[in-house]
Amino acid sequence: MKIVMIGGGPGGLGAAGAAKGTDPSAETVIYTQFEDVAYSPCGIPFVHGKEIDSFDRLFLATKEQYVQAGIDVHYETTVESIDLKNKKIHVRSEGDVSYDRLILCSGWKYKELDIPGQDLDGIYRVKNIRSAMEWDKFLDNVKTAVVVECGPIAVEMVSAMVHRGIKTTVVDPNPWPMSEAVDPDIMEPVRKDWEEAGVDLRWGERVTAFRGDKTLTHVETTSGVVDADIAILGTPKVPNNDLAKAAGIKIGSTGGIIIDSRGRTSDPDVFAAGDCAEIVHGITNVPLQGLSGSHAYAQGKVAGVNAAGGERIYQPVHIPWGMLAGEWMIGGISFGETSASAVGINYICGQTTGITRARYYPGVKPITVKLLVDPKSRRLVGAQMVGGEGVKERADFLGVVSRAGLTIDALASMENVYSPAIGALNEPIAIAAQDAVMKLDGKV
Amino acid sequence: MKIVMIGGGPGGLGAAGAAKGTDPSAETVIYTQFEDVAYSPCGIPFVHGKEIDSFDRLFLATKEQYVQAGIDVHYETTVESIDLKNKKIHVRSEGDVSYDRLILCSGWKYKELDIPGQDLDGIYRVKNIRSAMEWDKFLDNVKTAVVVECGPIAVEMVSAMVHRGIKTTVVDPNPWPMSEAVDPDIMEPVRKDWEEAGVDLRWGERVTAFRGDKTLTHVETTSGVVDADIAILGTPKVPNNDLAKAAGIKIGSTGGIIIDSRGRTSDPDVFAAGDCAEIVHGITNVPLQGLSGSHAYAQGKVAGVNAAGGERIYQPVHIPWGMLAGEWMIGGISFGETSASAVGINYICGQTTGITRARYYPGVKPITVKLLVDPKSRRLVGAQMVGGEGVKERADFLGVVSRAGLTIDALASMENVYSPAIGALNEPIAIAAQDAVMKLDGKV
Repeated sequence: MKIVMIGGGPGGLGAAGAAKGTDPSAETVIYTQFEDVAYSPCGIPFVHGKEIDSFDRLFLATKEQYVQAGIDVHYETTVESIDLKNKKIHVRSEGDVSYDRLILCSGWKYKELDIPGQDLDGIYRVKNIRSAMEWDKFLDNVKTAVVVECGPIAVEMVSAMVHRGIKTTVVDPNPWPMSEAVDPDIMEPVRKDWEEAGVDLRWGERVTAFRGDKTLTHVETTSGVVDADIAILGTPKVPNNDLAKAAGIKIGSTGGIIIDSRGRTSDPDVFAAGDCAEIVHGITNVPLQGLSGSHAYAQGKVAGVNAAGGERIYQPVHIPWGMLAGEWMIGGISFGETSASAVGINYICGQTTGITRARYYPGVKPITVKLLVDPKSRRLVGAQMVGGEGVKERADFLGVVSRAGLTIDALASMENVYSPAIGALNEPIAIAAQDAVMKLDGKV
Repeated sequence: MKIVMIGGGPGGLGAAGAAKGTDPSAETVIYTQFEDVAYSPCGIPFVHGKEIDSFDRLFLATKEQYVQAGIDVHYETTVESIDLKNKKIHVRSEGDVSYDRLILCSGWKYKELDIPGQDLDGIYRVKNIRSAMEWDKFLDNVKTAVVVECGPIAVEMVSAMVHRGIKTTVVDPNPWPMSEAVDPDIMEPVRKDWEEAGVDLRWGERVTAFRGDKTLTHVETTSGVVDADIAILGTPKVPNNDLAKAAGIKIGSTGGIIIDSRGRTSDPDVFAAGDCAEIVHGITNVPLQGLSGSHAYAQGKVAGVNAAGGERIYQPVHIPWGMLAGEWMIGGISFGETSASAVGINYICGQTTGITRARYYPGVKPITVKLLVDPKSRRLVGAQMVGGEGVKERADFLGVVSRAGLTIDALASMENVYSPAIGALNEPIAIAAQDAVMKLDGKV
């Protein structure tokens, strides 16, 4: 059995490892256009920001380790087409390569803006580590940066620019950063940090052209001109699906490949995982696209197991997420108030701002918790948080609570750890849940 | 309606506040033997250890705030007896005081050792803040300390002594610190920290006498003599129940007052909350005693609501707990391997040592997670953790999972946040759960 992965990100690596684990005799081959696999692209903004001292630290495994594991990685190769009927892919410089099972893990790309000057030098799309190494040298001579739309990676890059002392302007047609996913009150402390750090924040303003002679020198916006030695693209992630589309694999409404709960596409011998695929949301049953590397890895494992003849199900997602934003951690699950309203979900919101340790203990941080609850089922439809610590663990927790369909009452009456150095007398999740219960029961 | 609380700790304050909230016209009176209410005794070891710079910071509210809230606190008063038949208590210096509802929140005391020299100066039972202020001055001249049995407060006090540069000896008849509750592998890194800090650790050794002329100078043990300017008692907490016993209130097998799910004792007009009461465990249905201030506060609120004519239930406990121990955080829920074995609970243990952030991100810490699972129901029977951060949040999470009766499979397939600065690709709880599932399904 020959199992071929297109893509060497977390989806492809998860798939290859799981396929090999399920059927050790399977031939597992990864095709990647890049020079490396098994590094953490998520770490790139933090090397640019100097929190991490070297790109070398982002590598997770050596090429030799994949050889040892029996996974055959073809680096710097371009897959040009897929022939579903004859179960072959065409690889530039290798020719036709047959497969028994194919797993598409071709990931995502930035949504491009339809404006002049896109091919100028100086427009940075943060993604690949080799290219990031070159850009990092370039950044040493950068005085002015423009961040064009403020998606999640762009949020991290704003902090990186601030840490490097680069004069930074954010130009975003939306009214606040990550506005599609995150509520304005959650982003408010982040916005304030940036403002205090001297970042020029231009919400509701759109970049209309990149300008310069070969190399970017400034951007034009709907309101004027901004000097820019570099422009960092922060537009939404879109699925990287050209090959799949051309081959006739069925694509969904989000632009992601449609897969079933086993990761199987419309072709029974072709699977997909990660950002190139779409995935069903556990609350709305609506397909989504563009989740995290952790999702891609887990989906890859499911596709790998099933492709190799095993049996594993990937459940609909409740999307715990979290990240650094300015000096804060933000995170949550599923919907916020903005996104819930946008899709017409009815909710009440229980909310509190609490603390992460005893009020008097060094290092204590504030944390705001918003819990969105369906008034009929009393179950979570989402949550958003901003705080100084403990956001990731709480998001994971709420993800499990949501998937299990526990009611808000289970959180309102939860027990919690109290010990001054590590937790406050009142857990903010419990207090936010109690607020929700009072609103649900008409006591507020 | 007159509601009287005996005890001004978290149980008494929770009860008074909730009673007043339920029936604003109720007269609510707290009797406490101490000079203060509304401070955090849990912070005392950290002032001794100099992490917190002043005892003043441990006070949560002023006396005036209770007056404002309509709660009448009688400080430095001793309740001498309870007359259930005539619904009266006898207060030294006040005489008989009648009540409509009585709430017993008399807390806990250290189990005393039956050995000579217990009344010498220099034997410190960490509990009250005024006394702690005096002891803190005393500690300035202390060169040698002996910690007698290593319960939770004693674990914090060992670190405090180390931070003050006091030569410290731990004498404990048990084989490791907190041995009744915590597994030896969880305490191992703590033990190692202490050893490296020069603490003389004497497990399996018992103090047989406190010696000195008025003031302690040394302790005798089963193996020798240890110099000691101070002895810190770290024996188990026992319920402080003399009044209730004398009045004929029913006491349970643990020594705690028996209460129902509304906090009501064997007398329908008398309630109890906190460490003086016993509480049913959610997994074994066996009564327990000696939980945290957070439990006492929540139980107090339930008793207060019900005493004032409201209706609230306190559910059986799954006991998320956590604390600092040496340079580590430890925590968990319900049982560890040692305690589960001791009561004859059948379990398998899924285990991993993972990391709290990306491997390359500054501040990343290890965390060991052990999940104990009932092989039949596949539900949690306990968990223990030791790590550098995120222990409290994970313990809270597992407490809710346990109470909701979710299976280990829900954890093995959980989604998790991945973002380098705040969480690793693989959540240690998920990996430990996957280990448990493999063991349950006979694949290991």
